[in-house]
Amino acid sequence: MVSARKILLAFSLLACACVVAVAQPSGRSERPQGPPDSDEQRIADLVSASRILVNEGVLDRFGHVTVRSLKNPTHYFMPRAMPPGLVTASDIVELDANSVAIDPNAPRTNGERFIHGEIYRVRPDVQAVVHSHSPAVIPFSIAPGRPLRPVLHMAGFLPEKVSVFDHRNVSKDDPSLRGKLMVNNAKLGAALAKTLGGDSVVLIRGHGNAVVGASLPWAVFRAVYTHLNARTQMEAITLGADVIYLNEDELKMHTVEVFDVERPWQNLKSRLPKM
Amino acid sequence: MVSARKILLAFSLLACACVVAVAQPSGRSERPQGPPDSDEQRIADLVSASRILVNEGVLDRFGHVTVRSLKNPTHYFMPRAMPPGLVTASDIVELDANSVAIDPNAPRTNGERFIHGEIYRVRPDVQAVVHSHSPAVIPFSIAPGRPLRPVLHMAGFLPEKVSVFDHRNVSKDDPSLRGKLMVNNAKLGAALAKTLGGDSVVLIRGHGNAVVGASLPWAVFRAVYTHLNARTQMEAITLGADVIYLNEDELKMHTVEVFDVERPWQNLKSRLPKM
Amino acid sequence: MVSARKILLAFSLLACACVVAVAQPSGRSERPQGPPDSDEQRIADLVSASRILVNEGVLDRFGHVTVRSLKNPTHYFMPRAMPPGLVTASDIVELDANSVAIDPNAPRTNGERFIHGEIYRVRPDVQAVVHSHSPAVIPFSIAPGRPLRPVLHMAGFLPEKVSVFDHRNVSKDDPSLRGKLMVNNAKLGAALAKTLGGDSVVLIRGHGNAVVGASLPWAVFRAVYTHLNARTQMEAITLGADVIYLNEDELKMHTVEVFDVERPWQNLKSRLPKM
Amino acid sequence: MVSARKILLAFSLLACACVVAVAQPSGRSERPQGPPDSDEQRIADLVSASRILVNEGVLDRFGHVTVRSLKNPTHYFMPRAMPPGLVTASDIVELDANSVAIDPNAPRTNGERFIHGEIYRVRPDVQAVVHSHSPAVIPFSIAPGRPLRPVLHMAGFLPEKVSVFDHRNVSKDDPSLRGKLMVNNAKLGAALAKTLGGDSVVLIRGHGNAVVGASLPWAVFRAVYTHLNARTQMEAITLGADVIYLNEDELKMHTVEVFDVERPWQNLKSRLPKM
Repeated sequence: MVSARKILLAFSLLACACVVAVAQPSGRSERPQGPPDSDEQRIADLVSASRILVNEGVLDRFGHVTVRSLKNPTHYFMPRAMPPGLVTASDIVELDANSVAIDPNAPRTNGERFIHGEIYRVRPDVQAVVHSHSPAVIPFSIAPGRPLRPVLHMAGFLPEKVSVFDHRNVSKDDPSLRGKLMVNNAKLGAALAKTLGGDSVVLIRGHGNAVVGASLPWAVFRAVYTHLNARTQMEAITLGADVIYLNEDELKMHTVEVFDVERPWQNLKSRLPKM
Repeated sequence: MVSARKILLAFSLLACACVVAVAQPSGRSERPQGPPDSDEQRIADLVSASRILVNEGVLDRFGHVTVRSLKNPTHYFMPRAMPPGLVTASDIVELDANSVAIDPNAPRTNGERFIHGEIYRVRPDVQAVVHSHSPAVIPFSIAPGRPLRPVLHMAGFLPEKVSVFDHRNVSKDDPSLRGKLMVNNAKLGAALAKTLGGDSVVLIRGHGNAVVGASLPWAVFRAVYTHLNARTQMEAITLGADVIYLNEDELKMHTVEVFDVERPWQNLKSRLPKM
Repeated sequence: MVSARKILLAFSLLACACVVAVAQPSGRSERPQGPPDSDEQRIADLVSASRILVNEGVLDRFGHVTVRSLKNPTHYFMPRAMPPGLVTASDIVELDANSVAIDPNAPRTNGERFIHGEIYRVRPDVQAVVHSHSPAVIPFSIAPGRPLRPVLHMAGFLPEKVSVFDHRNVSKDDPSLRGKLMVNNAKLGAALAKTLGGDSVVLIRGHGNAVVGASLPWAVFRAVYTHLNARTQMEAITLGADVIYLNEDELKMHTVEVFDVERPWQNLKSRLPKM
Repeated sequence: MVSARKILLAFSLLACACVVAVAQPSGRSERPQGPPDSDEQRIADLVSASRILVNEGVLDRFGHVTVRSLKNPTHYFMPRAMPPGLVTASDIVELDANSVAIDPNAPRTNGERFIHGEIYRVRPDVQAVVHSHSPAVIPFSIAPGRPLRPVLHMAGFLPEKVSVFDHRNVSKDDPSLRGKLMVNNAKLGAALAKTLGGDSVVLIRGHGNAVVGASLPWAVFRAVYTHLNARTQMEAITLGADVIYLNEDELKMHTVEVFDVERPWQNLKSRLPKM
């Protein structure tokens, strides 16, 4: 049922995979231009992204956001293991396609870096990944009869029903993985990426979620609205009535082609407290 | 059923449509007088209104409040597109009856300015409009069996059942509007204003709400209590019992004639953090 | 069923009606002594009480706390109409038994001062009254099948089922009071005091609650725990199971004789932010 | 059903009962080493622990954390009675095996110190105890049909169903204890410790919970995740569907042998506001 939409989305994402600043159709000339893309700019944005996600309540104690390298597109940048609200540019580590730090003396990064590395491996359209433990979202990962679904006008990027990754589906055939709730090796990361498929978001049972985007602004925007959508859907269910979900037409409006993510990105950045 | 009340409300609102500082009946002489009405004062109040709505948790990242111009009553004032908590007087833009900026070099305003412009067009009694994404309210917009209804002593301005605007009712006959969850053109704005009718509040399905008032203090007060009423009604429903709603007599008490909004306005202003 | 307990409570409250610093039984000598009672001390405590109730989330925008005068026990002290978090000693007004300011030039006090005045009139044991709109409590006032009941170890001062005052029971025979959701005259205040009876707390339908105590520390402590008890009871009901309420023995432990309120009072005061 | 796991847990906890800094298996060499263990270090950590638990929302107004003495393992350290967020090293009191202060001039400690003292008496593996009134957890203590159960990937330390201590089980045979909701004598403390058994957490009906650990970092980490797990489980139940709990394999992963608590401890410490 969602396949037509997914294909459209995949095309549009691929179309801009290497360009953050998408050319604007003539009618949208008022949009502020982002700075030129470069690894320096991506690292600066990664610091903003970490702080925005804390400021908006998506990341609390833990969680991490990463960005693909423009220069070495199999590599990605990740903060060292630390509270995400305190990240600065000097905390960023470059990791290779196997999630190993390029610099052998680099500080330790989070053990769950494989969530990011294995998604980058199979999703060339993805330039940025957020892994959060957003408390509004986790209940949907442990209540199988109640999938997370798009209800908010800003959440049209969500698939019609968000998939849930459960390590038990992997570990049932591999005793070495039994009980592994952390996605802290390549095999589990690859299985997670497979569950994500071509979607924008995947839940991790009892643990959190991963959100991807064609740029850091996209991934951050989606992580914020995944969180808000979950809270709203839960409260609507509390009202004890049928819930109205977004329909096909509405879901189509949230591709990178028709929605300008630079605006909420600038807005979210300007809300950051002074450092 | 609500028609008698609506007519009374419309009369009393019309009666004071051009005067913010209503003359006081003799028994209410203790009320503090507001400053004389002028566009300068309205702009100053608009800055306060934006900051109050953020301070009270009604506006978070996005949303906007506007005020009609006293000098050119078909025009209105709106902050440029920016986080509402940071608005200052220099950010205010004057828009005409078609929601086009008077100054061709004015900064961009929010694409959803048509919510405001189309309400001002058909509601001469309305001097101020708030559009928020108040998270407490949205669940009622996607749970059709559970309309938002007045339960709080301060929420007698709400209609007995708050209407929900859904673009699907417009776009089903107009393919160009399919999937448009944003109210960002005149046709959708006009349809929204029609759903609002003579009420004080209309919900926008999966998106937010619009609240109107005979002055900025009225619109702000109502936006705050729409939010609080929604939270309280939801929690009462959670208790799993019948809920007691306000009755006709109680609803009548909240017209501009019997309720002095200057007091909560001064109170809400004095709660603002120092800039 | 609760009458035995109520009588015990009434006796113990009456016994100390004019003394804030109750003499301690020998086994409790470790209790810190409060300062000597005086109207100056009561006014200083009233400022602390207002600020504590804001700091603990019981009062938000509105609401008020008052204290009986020691010198003129038919009089009481109340802050002028203003946000409760900003009250200072110079904002305190002395009101007489009919809730009229002693000083004809005194600033305006809240229109709902009759909640306080009419309770003081009929409850000589009461030295302090809190009126709040605590959002956790209001849902219990509009869900008649679900009375607020004591569940928390610190909430044994609550009656077994907290009564709800509804002006409709008064106004049904008095057309002049129809629709009056505010308790802003003596008749409604007296009816509220009658619904309170000998209890510590009464809810006001769709509006808030009133909490009384044998001193400001008692009233503040009870207002805080009424709020926390309501939140906990609501969440237990959400779990969809039977709920365990406090039993008779447990309720008895929270009289002024066996519970030392000076400790939480000092604790709550030391949590206040520096002015 | 949980007995095998409990035995394993007890063994692993006993194995490191006197050593905070556990030797690392070769594959985990990247772990930061904690400082050498000493009573001075434990007191410094106790100050951090109090402040972390306030900063993370586990302790609010009240509640306390303690640590066993390394030098006199029957003794323990506890802050004097005060708001936990304000504790400094000079507020720490040394108590003996019977919860009596060593220094007869020591300031008063909380009346519920017996929760700590009686657990230390029977659980030599326990080096630290947290007693909180975490509001997310209490509802599970008064809803007998809904035990608190592990759902979060970080909450594998929880028993499959968390036991609830109720003084009524003790006081039904001892009239002197009737109605005693506070655990403020040795008999009630011992009964609580018996209900805890070999588990990591026990709830106290209508009151709060006690969490134990092989070190302060363990106890703090567990108190934080007991709180988060409760919130998540409650919201999953709100979704009205079956809930997926952690299974045996997943529970096993959270022993001190396989989970490195030093990392979240450093993370939580670095989040503390500057004093």
